[in-house]
Amino acid sequence: MPLIQRVMIVGGTHGNEFTGAYLIKKFEQHPHLVHRASFETITLLANPKAFLAVRRYIDKDLNRCFQQVELQDLTLSSYEDIRAKEINYFFGANGKTPVDAILDIHTTTANMGLTVITDEHPFNLRLAAYLQSINPLVNVYVLPQSEQEYSLPSICKFGCTIEVGAVAQGLLQADLFRQTEALIDTALNYLEQYNQAEILSFDSKLTFYQHHGTIDYPRNESGEIQAMIHPQLHFQDYKSLTPGAPMFLTFDGEAIAYEGASTVYPVFINEAAYYEKGIAMCITQRQQAIF
Amino acid sequence: MPLIQRVMIVGGTHGNEFTGAYLIKKFEQHPHLVHRASFETITLLANPKAFLAVRRYIDKDLNRCFQQVELQDLTLSSYEDIRAKEINYFFGANGKTPVDAILDIHTTTANMGLTVITDEHPFNLRLAAYLQSINPLVNVYVLPQSEQEYSLPSICKFGCTIEVGAVAQGLLQADLFRQTEALIDTALNYLEQYNQAEILSFDSKLTFYQHHGTIDYPRNESGEIQAMIHPQLHFQDYKSLTPGAPMFLTFDGEAIAYEGASTVYPVFINEAAYYEKGIAMCITQRQQAIF
Repeated sequence: MPLIQRVMIVGGTHGNEFTGAYLIKKFEQHPHLVHRASFETITLLANPKAFLAVRRYIDKDLNRCFQQVELQDLTLSSYEDIRAKEINYFFGANGKTPVDAILDIHTTTANMGLTVITDEHPFNLRLAAYLQSINPLVNVYVLPQSEQEYSLPSICKFGCTIEVGAVAQGLLQADLFRQTEALIDTALNYLEQYNQAEILSFDSKLTFYQHHGTIDYPRNESGEIQAMIHPQLHFQDYKSLTPGAPMFLTFDGEAIAYEGASTVYPVFINEAAYYEKGIAMCITQRQQAIF
Repeated sequence: MPLIQRVMIVGGTHGNEFTGAYLIKKFEQHPHLVHRASFETITLLANPKAFLAVRRYIDKDLNRCFQQVELQDLTLSSYEDIRAKEINYFFGANGKTPVDAILDIHTTTANMGLTVITDEHPFNLRLAAYLQSINPLVNVYVLPQSEQEYSLPSICKFGCTIEVGAVAQGLLQADLFRQTEALIDTALNYLEQYNQAEILSFDSKLTFYQHHGTIDYPRNESGEIQAMIHPQLHFQDYKSLTPGAPMFLTFDGEAIAYEGASTVYPVFINEAAYYEKGIAMCITQRQQAIF
């Protein structure tokens, strides 16, 4: 595998996720924090207009605009469509200054702690395993490449999404800000050591959560939600959910049970931005692997 | 004092505060829940357009549009200005069906639990004292009438704002939804008993927090914030803050202390919607009174 020449740290892909946006501002003021000897580090506030408006997006979700067919489609001209194409022209594989790895910083209203979202590429899984070995509180959520080919990080092969929560939209939480910064620092160190062909020795057992689908809220014919996340499931991301356990609570106070056949591990439970996407939670299976 | 003839329960004054909006939907489907013998109960989804857009407001904060001079100003024609005037035409003192009391349901990203915000009118303070006597977890935040004459509840003399948190914007949290519903139920019971001239006997010692000002984030010349709420202050609403205690943490990791002369009790700490208003927290003084 060739060396990593250019790494891009991204924040504010969603304008109301402040942690990433303010980390980008900090890195731009103090570039030595993200400087490494063997590669160039670029920072990007991905959706500045949405950040100023304190909204996830202006016209559509920027992190769903990066499918190749859409990037080539001149008829798509929303603010986010144009911005996605601009980012791709600069930093995509055939861009002016293509990047080899992306670290894209997000926050979630779900209680996902420090989460690394990655595809199944061995390089990325090994990066995730390293981050977990340095900080055992790091959760790793594996989403097949086919499920995220519309995302910003999909414009290059390597890297991951950093997803931190629970944080409400439109605000900063100092403890998670600092933990996210430390995670970026560790990821940059890993890429640097990779470039220098240092054999990193670390606990090679990775615990990860493999994406297995999504579950929507109960809704009426008009699409209005009819229930909330059950209090027993609230904030229980990465905990086991067994068949028969309460999942939702209707507005009238009736519990609705999880009816699957086997135990699963939900994540993105009660993510505010997913109400409109028809997702009350994502379902995963817990797995381990040796690296 | 005359009897209460009409009570209005309001939700969705801010479109991304779902608890109130979905409680209004529930009450409209099940009117018996808010029906009382001695008065008429009206429900209002105050900002339906902002609720659909999952935003606090479309053009400007509806809960700042109710000053009498603005309500009379025909040149003010933003969506929220017009909506405020419409609400006032229907339910204000000189409206078609004036209401005597308003219960306006809000949520906050601050950790304020179940809070009743009221002015100093003895009737409202006594209502607050009753709510606290039924549920000792109810916090009472007293804001002088002069500080909230722009708010929706200011169109009538009686009632209060219910402020519940911590809840992120754009989502529902089942436990707080149910606690808010119970609080509304108790408030309606109080108004009913008042009308029936029943002498309510309850623990008459009210603990409340008197508004004393606001504190902004440290900012640079461009108005950009330079620090976050300090982790030791995060979520510590209604707890004492003593001179010298850490208040903010700069992005570079430097603590900034509270420099006031005396102990205060901050509330609305890290409310997302207040970043743009220049408020990092509101400062109160803890007091007690007998009713």
